[in-house]
Amino acid sequence: MSASDSSKLDWSAIKVFAMDVDGILTDGCIYVSSDGSETKRFSIIDGLGLVRLRDAGIQLAWISGRGSYATNLRANELKIPHVIQGRKDKETALTELLEKLDLKPEQAAYMGDDDIDTAAIKLAGIGISVPEGQDSPKEAADYITERSGGNGAVREICNHILKALPQ
Amino acid sequence: MSASDSSKLDWSAIKVFAMDVDGILTDGCIYVSSDGSETKRFSIIDGLGLVRLRDAGIQLAWISGRGSYATNLRANELKIPHVIQGRKDKETALTELLEKLDLKPEQAAYMGDDDIDTAAIKLAGIGISVPEGQDSPKEAADYITERSGGNGAVREICNHILKALPQ
Amino acid sequence: MSASDSSKLDWSAIKVFAMDVDGILTDGCIYVSSDGSETKRFSIIDGLGLVRLRDAGIQLAWISGRGSYATNLRANELKIPHVIQGRKDKETALTELLEKLDLKPEQAAYMGDDDIDTAAIKLAGIGISVPEGQDSPKEAADYITERSGGNGAVREICNHILKALPQ
Amino acid sequence: MSASDSSKLDWSAIKVFAMDVDGILTDGCIYVSSDGSETKRFSIIDGLGLVRLRDAGIQLAWISGRGSYATNLRANELKIPHVIQGRKDKETALTELLEKLDLKPEQAAYMGDDDIDTAAIKLAGIGISVPEGQDSPKEAADYITERSGGNGAVREICNHILKALPQ
Repeated sequence: MSASDSSKLDWSAIKVFAMDVDGILTDGCIYVSSDGSETKRFSIIDGLGLVRLRDAGIQLAWISGRGSYATNLRANELKIPHVIQGRKDKETALTELLEKLDLKPEQAAYMGDDDIDTAAIKLAGIGISVPEGQDSPKEAADYITERSGGNGAVREICNHILKALPQ
Repeated sequence: MSASDSSKLDWSAIKVFAMDVDGILTDGCIYVSSDGSETKRFSIIDGLGLVRLRDAGIQLAWISGRGSYATNLRANELKIPHVIQGRKDKETALTELLEKLDLKPEQAAYMGDDDIDTAAIKLAGIGISVPEGQDSPKEAADYITERSGGNGAVREICNHILKALPQ
Repeated sequence: MSASDSSKLDWSAIKVFAMDVDGILTDGCIYVSSDGSETKRFSIIDGLGLVRLRDAGIQLAWISGRGSYATNLRANELKIPHVIQGRKDKETALTELLEKLDLKPEQAAYMGDDDIDTAAIKLAGIGISVPEGQDSPKEAADYITERSGGNGAVREICNHILKALPQ
Repeated sequence: MSASDSSKLDWSAIKVFAMDVDGILTDGCIYVSSDGSETKRFSIIDGLGLVRLRDAGIQLAWISGRGSYATNLRANELKIPHVIQGRKDKETALTELLEKLDLKPEQAAYMGDDDIDTAAIKLAGIGISVPEGQDSPKEAADYITERSGGNGAVREICNHILKALPQ
């Protein structure tokens, strides 16, 4: 499905926006330093969108297959309530989150770029991927963003959800 | 308005060039490290343009919605006289700056990429955005740069202002 | 040879995937810091592909012309069994590796972007380069990836090898 | 002049290759960290080209308008014999270098991306700029590289000089 079809999706049903970290909130890369530190590149416009969703009462979750302290630091700054790391079984992690929040899959948007995200993308009411994603999540997605991961793709989804909120 | 219309704007009226930081002086990203440091990517050609404006007596201001010590370090190197951080109400911050400098809005150029910049872009004599900006600031702008933020967009504006200075 | 010809290659013969580091697993750059540290940018999707190959019993080797502790750190995380650094004579290094593993050149895939990789690319059963590589390795290659180095080129090869494994 | 005209230039006359640093050997950006360090992004393929020129007896010089310890670290690794920093008067710096080396301007290649490089580009036998350079150096240049600064532009010049050396 192409980005131009966003108007056909029921963004107003979304109560939780869950997403993969690497390749979605970042450019998919880690900067590995000889001093042992690890750095990730996050987008400021994504951050502003997530803060607005949070303030509007939408639940937010980051679900990453790999643990990273850089991710924790950015999540803390944005006060992301659910930060789940080291879980490659994204679908199970999303299911557990929905149970905890007492929400149904159709109330969830899930966004990911790799094939370990595919089942979660299928499960969610609105499944989302990015233009540079692997084939499998892109084929499963209801929506593919215009912007690439780490460069405003998350903000694009935040804007769709915010626009559909009751004024 | 497109970049090709720069000749229709009165750059010679500009006495202060105020700008957002993230997405304007940078690529809109922060590099978050596991060691707790935060890094931003600034352009050298932008820096040379800003130093020339400063030496030519144009007032310079950086107005950011978010505090960052990396921003302070770069501002110190370029001796930017007005560095205002942690202000999402950009229009009010710009108005206060103009009062302090005893200048009118039509003597200001303001440049930003996100919707919190839109009112300041409208207020300024020349409002500017970047190609990858959000819709709202781009629609409000009198001028959209050819170069992207953090990749010479600020230098492009510096060049326009410098060219219009009395020789 | 273009990326579209991948189906003509016998990926099922490959028992070892050896590759250059800079420009293949990274964007070809080092980030040199004033504090003396050196940073490299690795792709998460490449990492997942390499881990899958390793788990499937394919031998993996990184052969770099230049030593870098950042490379060691990433190799350790992915548990790459053969990390050979400081060797500009890539063909000899690959030959020694094949002897050690008791494998023939036709059982090897080798991937590199610079002319010091050309002889190893020719030696390997499947020689691979990237779109932005130098002329010499690209001319010698049996396959040129669609994705660029550090942006999923290695994952593209992992996917080809994985798809050809007996199910 | 376009990159396609390289064959009309007498690369065999070049005895010294002098170049600007930011925007030529890097992407024109500095990564400013909250911990006070400054990072620059250098290309590995550029480095290999420069080492080959040095080994072939070509003099190498880096001339930067701005001092940076990250630049010193990379220059040390590549054993660049002439590292001149904090000089915005590039033409004078180049003239002094030529006197010291007892060479004539027509034996020099000079490469830069900003208008402070323009006079040195005009002085040198072969003046070079990059596609994303400012207008003034590009108009003065005898040759504009196909690759961008920090992404192989310097290697492109190294290859031209190496190819023209007596075998």
